[in-house]
Amino acid sequence: MTTFQANFTTAEYLRRIDKTRKAMAAKGLDAIIVSDPSNISWLSGYDGWSFYTYQAVILTHEGEPVWWGRGMDALGARRTVFMEDDCIRGYDDIYVQNPEKHPMEDLSGLLREKGLEKARLGVEMDNYYYAAAAHATLVRELPEATLQDATGLVNWQRAVKSEREIEYMQRAGRIVEVMHEHILEVAEPGMRKNDLVAEIYAAGIRGADGFWGDYPAIVPMAPSGMDATAPHLTWDDRPMETGEATFFEIAGAHRRYQCPQSRTLFFGEVPQKYRDAESAVLDAIDAGLEQAKPGNRAEDIANAFNATLNKAGFEKDSRCGYAIGISYPPDWGERTISFRRGDQTVLEPDMTFHFMPALWLDDGGLEITEPIRITETGHECFCNTPRKLFVKD
Amino acid sequence: MTTFQANFTTAEYLRRIDKTRKAMAAKGLDAIIVSDPSNISWLSGYDGWSFYTYQAVILTHEGEPVWWGRGMDALGARRTVFMEDDCIRGYDDIYVQNPEKHPMEDLSGLLREKGLEKARLGVEMDNYYYAAAAHATLVRELPEATLQDATGLVNWQRAVKSEREIEYMQRAGRIVEVMHEHILEVAEPGMRKNDLVAEIYAAGIRGADGFWGDYPAIVPMAPSGMDATAPHLTWDDRPMETGEATFFEIAGAHRRYQCPQSRTLFFGEVPQKYRDAESAVLDAIDAGLEQAKPGNRAEDIANAFNATLNKAGFEKDSRCGYAIGISYPPDWGERTISFRRGDQTVLEPDMTFHFMPALWLDDGGLEITEPIRITETGHECFCNTPRKLFVKD
Repeated sequence: MTTFQANFTTAEYLRRIDKTRKAMAAKGLDAIIVSDPSNISWLSGYDGWSFYTYQAVILTHEGEPVWWGRGMDALGARRTVFMEDDCIRGYDDIYVQNPEKHPMEDLSGLLREKGLEKARLGVEMDNYYYAAAAHATLVRELPEATLQDATGLVNWQRAVKSEREIEYMQRAGRIVEVMHEHILEVAEPGMRKNDLVAEIYAAGIRGADGFWGDYPAIVPMAPSGMDATAPHLTWDDRPMETGEATFFEIAGAHRRYQCPQSRTLFFGEVPQKYRDAESAVLDAIDAGLEQAKPGNRAEDIANAFNATLNKAGFEKDSRCGYAIGISYPPDWGERTISFRRGDQTVLEPDMTFHFMPALWLDDGGLEITEPIRITETGHECFCNTPRKLFVKD
Repeated sequence: MTTFQANFTTAEYLRRIDKTRKAMAAKGLDAIIVSDPSNISWLSGYDGWSFYTYQAVILTHEGEPVWWGRGMDALGARRTVFMEDDCIRGYDDIYVQNPEKHPMEDLSGLLREKGLEKARLGVEMDNYYYAAAAHATLVRELPEATLQDATGLVNWQRAVKSEREIEYMQRAGRIVEVMHEHILEVAEPGMRKNDLVAEIYAAGIRGADGFWGDYPAIVPMAPSGMDATAPHLTWDDRPMETGEATFFEIAGAHRRYQCPQSRTLFFGEVPQKYRDAESAVLDAIDAGLEQAKPGNRAEDIANAFNATLNKAGFEKDSRCGYAIGISYPPDWGERTISFRRGDQTVLEPDMTFHFMPALWLDDGGLEITEPIRITETGHECFCNTPRKLFVKD
């Protein structure tokens, strides 16, 4: 029973379940055990920071899905999922982080109770929240079941967004826009980096246009100078300096939907090298975006981007984009489609991506990125943040 | 090569490695593959939000540990680990979130190169960052190796803190104290919850006494009223109301060391039920803390706490504390010692815990908790936050 303002109608959850069941049938699965928190939320509405203990949604071909998790979190499930309370099953606290017992023993009992002990069960083998020990326990406890890899099965159903999902992503897009505006307003040489990150967090969580900010699935990245040659270092208290570039890889979030966008800020006179990189990246973004339309393939965007970038004398050897939507830590990507050579996924309207053509140079980083939505005829950007290298004197 | 201000001396890292090797020897392990980001950081100094792709530290009985991860993150490793650059190994970006390939294929190659293809290798079977697919890939790629569960092996070495670690936790303790002071100052009925969370985040990251705030391993929890009957719901924008209790389960963090502390704030006249609960919890905390001294066992604290609580007519059926220290999302606990019946771990000086006697009532929650350090003769609290139910009219 939902007491929160429900994020989606029950009809929308049922459509998602129907879509997922078709994918299960195509793989010959009797049931799936869904461990990925974003998949759990997408299928059931569940929302809570409880994924550090085992939890799952069990979906068969009939009836409502079952939420399973730690007993104390069953109360949070009652307040967030669309299903009736009898579809919520909590396990005893003695299973929590106890080397003598594993929560999957309890889940095995539940699966036996549902008559699934000989079933073909899909499990998300390559998910943060389905560790090797969880799998080993299920294999041991359910010797007659067939456990089959279903990594990404639900994630792929999420690729095309509903109207309501797009609306949430637009709100998140507006939030990240406001975060970048705020950075430009308050950042200055001499400011401690952590003080700036405090401002970024606060702006993001206050939200924009009356829409509240949720927590991004990754913390704000804001490395300066040489630290910006490495993409994933977090902050400390060293003050920002004139003559340095700082990139801001941040996301707005609303009701768990993520809209990441990066911009780079240079203090002082911009060296020609950065101007060249800016110009190369902007041209390459244009070339990539031109390919962002239904019917084209994911790799078309990467190939066009890379061809233009290489012509200007720059190289990028990592993927330049990925699918986005609802997400929980540690990643705001959907872990399905990537913009890189070889990804032949055909683009469809209302697929959503972070086009992420970051360049890491030998003495700094340049990130100018765009969250986008594929439309009926091409694409649109979720944000109106000016697409350029920001400079402050 | 460290260019950041190193968090610890190389001597301290070597002591940790020595301690870990003894534990490996006791289990007959030739090497361990460490996936837990907090263990990786504790052994090598590595710090970055890159754990959403596979990474590890490989430790054998000789030489420096090897950091292994995504190619682009090798640059972050160069800037944070204590080891020489030739102990840093990056893998190609094509392995990232690619259903056709698994990063553990690359790691297997590295292990073969090190002559470990027939070795007895410890792996952290029950860790978020060692998914079932990672294990299956290693098993397949290294058919002659013996993979043995080493979950918690490194975590247990972390239980007793060094002087420097205690110093960082004291700073984190001061930060969470300031966060609670700030909440008391700015919270009021009618305030949107997300606006208050924005303030909490900003205060925590600004830090205290000149020490910068790092990101807590869990987001601020701040549920009100009935939502507070469920422990792990996050915020939205509903305004706080008179007549409701809100609990704040938050942590200060400094250089990845976490100091969680909870307090509860009531707006308006406090119902007798909450006064009774407050009084019961405070008495039970005193009883528990009296047992917090070297030589006693972890369960002694839980048993004393529960006995006193039960006498007052309240019950708590979940554990009332756990070890804390360095941590990364999704959990700020060390996942070793728990304050609960049956945990016979003997307490030692400089072990550190979150004594977490939260009470969830039928119409709200009451959390008054203390991060503590075991001393030579008893314990001390990391914070001076007044231990009581906060009330604002």
